[in-house]
Amino acid sequence: MDALTAFQILDYCGIAVFAATGALAASRKQLDIVGFLFFAVITGIGGGTFRDMLLDIPVFWVVQPVYVLVCIGIALLVYVFAHLLESRYKALLWLDALGLGAYTVVGASKGLIASGEPSIAIVTGVLTAVLGGIIRDMIAGEESVLMRDEVYVTASVAGALAFVLGQPLLPAGMAAYIGFAVGFLVRAGAIRYGWSLPRYKSRPGRKPEDIP
Amino acid sequence: MDALTAFQILDYCGIAVFAATGALAASRKQLDIVGFLFFAVITGIGGGTFRDMLLDIPVFWVVQPVYVLVCIGIALLVYVFAHLLESRYKALLWLDALGLGAYTVVGASKGLIASGEPSIAIVTGVLTAVLGGIIRDMIAGEESVLMRDEVYVTASVAGALAFVLGQPLLPAGMAAYIGFAVGFLVRAGAIRYGWSLPRYKSRPGRKPEDIP
Amino acid sequence: MDALTAFQILDYCGIAVFAATGALAASRKQLDIVGFLFFAVITGIGGGTFRDMLLDIPVFWVVQPVYVLVCIGIALLVYVFAHLLESRYKALLWLDALGLGAYTVVGASKGLIASGEPSIAIVTGVLTAVLGGIIRDMIAGEESVLMRDEVYVTASVAGALAFVLGQPLLPAGMAAYIGFAVGFLVRAGAIRYGWSLPRYKSRPGRKPEDIP
Repeated sequence: MDALTAFQILDYCGIAVFAATGALAASRKQLDIVGFLFFAVITGIGGGTFRDMLLDIPVFWVVQPVYVLVCIGIALLVYVFAHLLESRYKALLWLDALGLGAYTVVGASKGLIASGEPSIAIVTGVLTAVLGGIIRDMIAGEESVLMRDEVYVTASVAGALAFVLGQPLLPAGMAAYIGFAVGFLVRAGAIRYGWSLPRYKSRPGRKPEDIP
Repeated sequence: MDALTAFQILDYCGIAVFAATGALAASRKQLDIVGFLFFAVITGIGGGTFRDMLLDIPVFWVVQPVYVLVCIGIALLVYVFAHLLESRYKALLWLDALGLGAYTVVGASKGLIASGEPSIAIVTGVLTAVLGGIIRDMIAGEESVLMRDEVYVTASVAGALAFVLGQPLLPAGMAAYIGFAVGFLVRAGAIRYGWSLPRYKSRPGRKPEDIP
Repeated sequence: MDALTAFQILDYCGIAVFAATGALAASRKQLDIVGFLFFAVITGIGGGTFRDMLLDIPVFWVVQPVYVLVCIGIALLVYVFAHLLESRYKALLWLDALGLGAYTVVGASKGLIASGEPSIAIVTGVLTAVLGGIIRDMIAGEESVLMRDEVYVTASVAGALAFVLGQPLLPAGMAAYIGFAVGFLVRAGAIRYGWSLPRYKSRPGRKPEDIP
C-alpha cells in the first residue's frame, strides 16, 4: 500500500465531499448556479487553505489548480442531480462525515511533516477538518454542526489519535486509512445512533440581560 | 495608460469604498466612533489581507501603513456626514459594488503574478473581493449580501473573467479598467434592476428537526 | 524588570484567560468535554495565530506545543470547577478583559518588531486582541461582544497607545505592564460602571425590505 497514494486519495476524497456539502448547502438555500460554485469552492478548499497558511507551506490549490476544478465539477453535478435526493440534509451530513475522516488524516499528516510533533499534528488535523464546515455553516447562516448534541469534533480527535499512534507502528498508508476509518465511523455512529458524550451537567447560560 | 497607476487607483479606490461600507454598517448599528474605525479598517483591509497571506506575499498594509490611515480617514468622514444620506443602506450597496469591481481586478492581478495561472487568478480575485463584505456582515450580525436574490459573486466572476481574458490582448491598464467596469456594471444592474440568475428550482431545505 | 519575562507572562496570561473564556462559552452552551477543549483551544490561540500569519512569522503554537497544552489544562479546570461560579457570564467578561489587555500588548509588540511602525503595531495589537473573542462568539452563535454598548475595542486601542507611546521612554517590560494595565482598566470600567463613548446619534438602520 503506497503511502503517497493513500494521502492523495484521502486528499481528493476530502475536498470532493466537502465541496459536495457546500453545494448541498447552496441547494438548501436555493441559490443560483454561481452560489453553488462559490459554496463548493470555499467549503472544499477552506480547511486546507487555512492548514497550509498555518504551516507556512504553499497553499495547495494555488500550486495545483486542478483542486479548484474538482470543486467546480462537483458543484455542477450537485446542481443537476440534487433533486433526486430524498433528503439533501442527510446527504450533507454523511458526506461531511467522510470529509471529516479524510481531512483529519491529511491535516494531521501535513502537521506532522511540518512540525515533527504528534501533539501539533492532532491540532492541525482537527482544526482543518472542521474548519470548512464551520465556514460553510457561518456564511449560509445555519447553526454550526459543532453545536449539535452528537459527537463531531470528537470523531476528528479520535481519527487523528488513531493516525498519530498508528504512524510509527504501521506502514504510512495503512495508518492513514485506519485514521480515516476511525474518524468516519465514530461520526457515522453519531449520525446513525445519536452517539454523544455526556453534556455539561450544570445549568445553561442565561442571557446577559437576565444576569443581576 | 499606465498599468501600475491603474492598479494603484483601483487598489486605493477598493479599500476606500469598502472602508466606507464598514463605517456605514457601524452607523446602521449606531456604534461609537471607535466602532466606526474598527469596521472601516477590517472591511477595508480584510479581503486584501487574506489575499496576501494566501499568496504568501507581504501583507500590503504591514508594508505600507498609509492604507490603514485611508480607512481611518474614511471612517471619520462617514461619522460626520452619514446623517446627510437619505438611505445609508443604498449608499452601502453602491459603494460595495464599486469595491467589488475594483478589488476583483486587484486580487486577480496579484494572483496572476504570483501563480501565473488564469484559473487561480479568477479564484483569488473573487474570494478577496467578496471576503471583506462577508466579514463585515458576519461581525455586524447582518444577513450576508451573498444570500440575497441578486447576482453578487457572479458580478465578481464576470469582472475577473473580463480582466483575465483581456490581459493578453490589451494594455494591462486597459484590461484592469475593463474588468473593473464589467464587475461594477453587472452588480449595478443587480442593484438597480434586480438582475438575477435563476434560483435552484427544487424545494428549500427543511429544518433538521423536520426531517424524518 | 526583564522585558522578555514581561512579554512571556502577558503571553501565557492572555492565552490562559482567553482559553478559559472559550471553555466558559462551551459551558454556557452545555457542550461535552471535547467541546470545552475545542472552544478553549480556538479562543486561546485564535488571535495569536492570525497575528503570526499576518506578520509572516512562524505560528507560535506550531513551534511551541506547550501553548496548546495550556489551553487543554485550562479547559479541564473549567469543566470541573465552572459550576462553582455564581455567574459564568460575568467570569467570562472579566477574564476576557484580562486577555484583551495582555494580548493587545503582545500583539503590538510583535507588530512593532516585525514592521518597525508604531501605527502598524497598534493595528496588530487591537486586531489580535479582539479576534479570539470574535471567533468564539461567532461559532457559539452569541452576539459579538463588539456590538455591546460598552467600550471594548476602545480599551484595546487605549492599551496599545499606552504601550507604543511608553515604549521609547520606559524600560520595555514597564511599557508592557502599563499598556496591559491601561487596556484592562478601561475595559474594567466599562464592565463595572458601563463606561461608553457616545453612540452615533442618527437613526438606526432600517431593514433592507423597509427601504423604498
